Order: sequence, then C-alpha cells, then structure tokens
Amino acid sequence: MPLPTSYGNLLDQLRHESPLVQCITNYVAMNFAANTLLASGASPAMVHAPEEAGEFANIASAVTINIGTLSSHWLEGMRAAASAANESGKPWVLDPVAHFATAFRRKAVEELLALRPAVIRGNASEIMALAGDTSSGRGVDSGDSVERAEVSAMVLARRTHAVIAVTGEIDFVTDGQDGVRIAGGSALMPKVTAMGCALTCLVGAFVAVTPDSPLAATVSALACFSVAGSQAAQQASGPGSFAWQFIDALARLDGNTLQAQAQVTNA
Amino acid sequence: MPLPTSYGNLLDQLRHESPLVQCITNYVAMNFAANTLLASGASPAMVHAPEEAGEFANIASAVTINIGTLSSHWLEGMRAAASAANESGKPWVLDPVAHFATAFRRKAVEELLALRPAVIRGNASEIMALAGDTSSGRGVDSGDSVERAEVSAMVLARRTHAVIAVTGEIDFVTDGQDGVRIAGGSALMPKVTAMGCALTCLVGAFVAVTPDSPLAATVSALACFSVAGSQAAQQASGPGSFAWQFIDALARLDGNTLQAQAQVTNA
Amino acid sequence: MPLPTSYGNLLDQLRHESPLVQCITNYVAMNFAANTLLASGASPAMVHAPEEAGEFANIASAVTINIGTLSSHWLEGMRAAASAANESGKPWVLDPVAHFATAFRRKAVEELLALRPAVIRGNASEIMALAGDTSSGRGVDSGDSVERAEVSAMVLARRTHAVIAVTGEIDFVTDGQDGVRIAGGSALMPKVTAMGCALTCLVGAFVAVTPDSPLAATVSALACFSVAGSQAAQQASGPGSFAWQFIDALARLDGNTLQAQAQVTNA
Repeated sequence: MPLPTSYGNLLDQLRHESPLVQCITNYVAMNFAANTLLASGASPAMVHAPEEAGEFANIASAVTINIGTLSSHWLEGMRAAASAANESGKPWVLDPVAHFATAFRRKAVEELLALRPAVIRGNASEIMALAGDTSSGRGVDSGDSVERAEVSAMVLARRTHAVIAVTGEIDFVTDGQDGVRIAGGSALMPKVTAMGCALTCLVGAFVAVTPDSPLAATVSALACFSVAGSQAAQQASGPGSFAWQFIDALARLDGNTLQAQAQVTNA
Repeated sequence: MPLPTSYGNLLDQLRHESPLVQCITNYVAMNFAANTLLASGASPAMVHAPEEAGEFANIASAVTINIGTLSSHWLEGMRAAASAANESGKPWVLDPVAHFATAFRRKAVEELLALRPAVIRGNASEIMALAGDTSSGRGVDSGDSVERAEVSAMVLARRTHAVIAVTGEIDFVTDGQDGVRIAGGSALMPKVTAMGCALTCLVGAFVAVTPDSPLAATVSALACFSVAGSQAAQQASGPGSFAWQFIDALARLDGNTLQAQAQVTNA
Repeated sequence: MPLPTSYGNLLDQLRHESPLVQCITNYVAMNFAANTLLASGASPAMVHAPEEAGEFANIASAVTINIGTLSSHWLEGMRAAASAANESGKPWVLDPVAHFATAFRRKAVEELLALRPAVIRGNASEIMALAGDTSSGRGVDSGDSVERAEVSAMVLARRTHAVIAVTGEIDFVTDGQDGVRIAGGSALMPKVTAMGCALTCLVGAFVAVTPDSPLAATVSALACFSVAGSQAAQQASGPGSFAWQFIDALARLDGNTLQAQAQVTNA
C-alpha cells in the first residue's frame, strides 16, 4: 500500500475549514476533547440528547460516539445521531470504551456496529474483544499490547468495513487490506485520562475534511497526537503539566512540522 | 448614561460576601466554571435535578442556566430553578448556547425566556438569532461579529427587559437604553472551551451581590474576564497554558487593579 | 491506638496492584478524579448507569459514591453499585456532598447509609449534619471548622460502623474508637473545585488494596493529598497552577517520601 502521505496537508485543510464535529462522548472526556478539537482548528459541539442528536447530525460534518459513561438515554441519542449521519452521508467514528465489561455495553456496541461506523478507535483489549478474541482488559485501561491486537484489527476491519485504529505505545491502523504503524507519543499519555477519547474526536475532525479517505484521516489524527505528545513530553514534569503542554503543542502544530516529524511506516 | 464605575468595589464585595451561586450549566463547562467562581471568591453549586433544583434556588443568591448539553430532564430542572428564583426574588442569568441549531433548543429557550432572566449572555450569532435576525452561526462558535449584533441586543433587551451581553472581541452590554463596550481579553479566549459558559456563571455571582443593578453586575463580570484574560495572555504559550493562567490571574485580581485596567466605554 | 504507620507501603502496594476503582462521582469532579487516580497508580472507571453499575461493581476492587450532582437515575445506579459491592464483599466509600441542602439529598443519603459504606468522607459541615448536629453549611463549601466536627465524627463512626474522615485545614479520621489528625496541604486546596471529591476516589483506591484496614487506607489517602498538596503549593502561583502541580506531585510521590513527610498524629 502507498502510505497516506498527506497528513500535513490534511491538518492545514482542517484548520482552514474548521469543520463542525458533533461529539457524543463521556463526561470525563468532554472538556479535554473540546479543547483538543479547538486546538486543532475544528469546531466541537457536544450534543447528545435523543430530542436533537439526529437533527444536529444533519448540520455537523462528522459525528463521534464514545460509550465511556453510557446510559440508556444517551444510547438513544447515539443511535439517532449515527442513523442521521448515515442518512445524510456523513462519516461517524466509534469509540467502544470497555465494551466487554458488561452486558449493557456489549449490546450497545452491537447495535452501534450495525449502524456502520467509518472508523473504530480503541485500545488493544477493546479491539481484540470486539474481534471476538480473548483479551486481558478489565476496565477502561488496556491489558494487552497493540502488537497482539494487529490481527484482530485486520479481521475486524474486514468484517465491519470500517477503518480500525488500535492505539498504544505504537499505534496500528488498518482498512482490512493494509496496515500502518504510527510511533512517537509519550509514556505519560496513558497517565492522562481521556487522551484516547479526545483522539477519537480528532479522528472525527479529520474524517470530516476527507470523508472519502477514512484511512488517511485516521492516520493523520494519530500522527498529530504522536507528534504533539512527543513535544509535550519534553516540557512536562508529570501528567498534570503534560495535559496542558499537549494542548499547547497541538495548537502550535502546523502541516509542515507534522509532515516532517510524523513517524508513520507500512506494517 | 453614566458609566457603571463600581467594578472594583463590586469585585471586593463579591470576595467579601462569597455568594452561593447555583449553576445549571453544561457538562463541558462545569469544572472550569466552578474553578472560575472559586477564583473570584464565589461559592458555586452545580445542582440541576428537577427533584431539588427549585428547592436549592431558594437558598442560593442567584441562579445561572446554560443549555449547552440540554436534555428534557435537565430542562425540567432549569424551569424549576428559574421559577423558584422568580418566586423568591432572586436574579437568574440565561446562556442560550446554540439555541438556533435545533427545534428542541428553540422551544427550550422560548420557555426559559418566559421565566424572565435578569441577564442573557451569548455570542453574536446567538443574540442575533434570539432577536429574530439572520445570523451565520452553525454550532456553538459564533459566525458573526459583536458589532453586527449590537442593534439586535438593544431590541432584545427592550423586548425581554433583561440586560443583554454579547461577548466577543469587544463585548457589548445593554439594558435597552444605553450600551457599554468592554475591550481587552485575548484572541486565545475563543480557543479555550467553556470560557463563555464560565463567564455566564460569573455574571450570576456579580448579580447576586448587586441584584438591583444587573447592568453594573454584568459589566463588572465582563471586565474581570477581559483584564484577567489580558494578563493570562502575556504568560501563555497556547490555549492549554492560557486556561490555568487565566484562573491564576482571576484569583489574583483585586478591586483596584480591576478598576484601573478595565477598558469600559459608553457605546 | 497505635498509629497506622504503613502509608508508604500502602502507596507502593497501590502502584503495584493498580486496583480497578469504580467511581460514581459528580460531573464537576470526574476528570480531575480520574487524573488523581491515574497519578496514584490506580485504574479508575466512571460507570454509573443502573443498567450496569451493579455488574461492574463485581469486577471492580472498590466503589466510591459521591452525590454532588445527584439525580434520581444516578441514585438508582448508586444503590445498585453499593448493593453489589456489599454482596461481593467489596468496600465502598460515601461522599455525602451538601446532603443537608435539600430533602432529595437527605433521603438519598439515608438510603445509601443503610447500604453500609466502609468509609464516609466529607467536610466539617457535612459530617456534623450527618451526625445530627447543627452545622453552618449552605452549599458545597464548609461553614464549620474540622475541630468542631471531631465529636460528631466519633458519634457517626459508632453509629454507622464506618470510618469517618473530616477534611479541612487539619483532617480528622476516626473509626469510633480512636482518632488521627493529618496536617499539611495548602490553603489553595479549597480554592480548586473537586479536590475533596477526588480524595474520596483515592480513599477508594487505598481501601481496595487493604479492605480489612479502612482506617489505615483512609489515613494513607489523606496523607498523600496533604504531602502532594504541600509540594504543589511551593510551585503554584494560584489555584489554576496548583491543580496541575498537584497532579504532578502526586504522580512523583513514592512510599518513602510519603512516609517521611506525612504529618500524622494521634488525636
């Protein structure tokens, strides 16, 4: 596969277009995810209620759905937004947080999968479990390495026709045919809550500007996080300072720097 | 109109009285808004459920209502709190986030307006749409300049008998008779999520200490944000550092400095 | 009473075991509490819905419940989680935020108390009111000194068979027999929202690693906060910088330093 080589351009395009991204995400992540999108140039809108989630999806350029703090009422809104996105040809991104942990989550994710997400992002345990493999995950933190999840991701991509992103020490992205690895980032990233959830929202922002290339969009979002994460780690003295240094680094990141520093390789 | 010249005194009074402010705000803003109120000397309480929102409004000194992440259940609590505030003669402040975006929001704001807020704060697109004018707003970010919204604000103030605050590069506040402009702040402010929502809560804190002067209260709150925002911007290296520098600046701000640095002029 | 002298060891054990802690906490606190647990080495999971809260409690090592932004639906999830924790012999921790403020809260706390929390943490006003004494609390901030609440805490501990922690300038912890005081911390701590709520979650993490010693667990968590708070205050220029300096300090804290710097005395 030719590597998607346009991250730099896509980031510049994202900042230029400032797409409206509807994020239905968890309570823990909302503030950090909104700041992540603003720092990247997107316009986030956290609109979740069944009464309006579908209507709003019609004006948004993409939708992201994260089940971190799921409840029945929110699930209704998620279904409405994903369905409306489908009907109006907008891409949507799924983050199946700890979907293996309870029957309620398993059923919810099954329903959401049937609504055909363009991209699914998770940690290794989540993607392995979603592919039907045995994982070591307990809660929201991964108990498995990304490397172990690569085959599961490939299988899952073929079954769902979605781009699958497994994030961890070295990220892996696949469309079911080819695979891409993204290195970089920092060991502090799993020590800051909602980094993964915010990344899912950024995937939504990229997929909004290039809806026909979900693989390139996903790789670009992950490359942004890796480069900004590496930069932030050089200044940070712990997870508390890392969080805001990361937002500053992301806000500073331009297309040229992203293109020069992204560590993307064919798998 | 004589300019409200008492911002400094009002801030000192706020720190002295530490009013209890009930904030029904969105999930994105809650943490930042609570820290904003604490930094200003107020005592925030995020109490929203229909089961208790009205009862709590009776012990609070003011109520603020923000529809950012609206749902039916929360709307019920908002109505209860606004009604109780009215009955007990407490002022309440409305933040009609993206009210034009969906039918659900439009109807909710119509109901809330009928409960007579003392102050309405929004961005230019929100205030223009609320006055019945054509705006360029899509999501939660403004697509219009404050300058364009000044006439709409004046019309809306006369119709609702509320003080109207339009915030942006140069803020505009009016009671329907006269107008006041507040300059200062920083271009980083719209890059940090929930700044506007937190400001609405601070308006609530000021209106709690001077319920009979909603115009002076609103101008004072906006002046605090502008001065603290200008100070924070001198130290910040991006939106991530700006957010906490802003809280530090607000916590440091005293009445004399506010009075000396506030850039308030008659419109 | 012999002082619980094992804080250092317990912190090392916490970092080694990384217990899964289910936190049902309020919207304001979720992000900060999750980052607090990650900085301490625990694995937080914010799972609250009645549909799954009980099932999740079976895989968690401890549960924490905080009524800060209570609603009926969440109360149902709290009951489910506390009941499941009881049935599977897991300890759970209660944070009765402003329970005296409304009838809804008073009834909710009564129901939760009947489900036998292992530890109850609150500010002086909350603990005094819970013990049936007259307090000066209005909203979520305390209106009373810890010292005044010590007898109330002792009474409440005997009545509920829970360890009671009253936090403030000098914290007080009791199991109904003996009392322990923890000094340190910083005057900036009550100026940062959700510090107390995050501490409740950390008590849950410690009680997860030593479920048979809730008193030692509670004292250890409070000592962590006091030591990290003192360190953060030396670097902070206000509540905004304090918040992230605190997370950095907590992430840096090791067992030896905790043991050396903790200011714990018999009451």
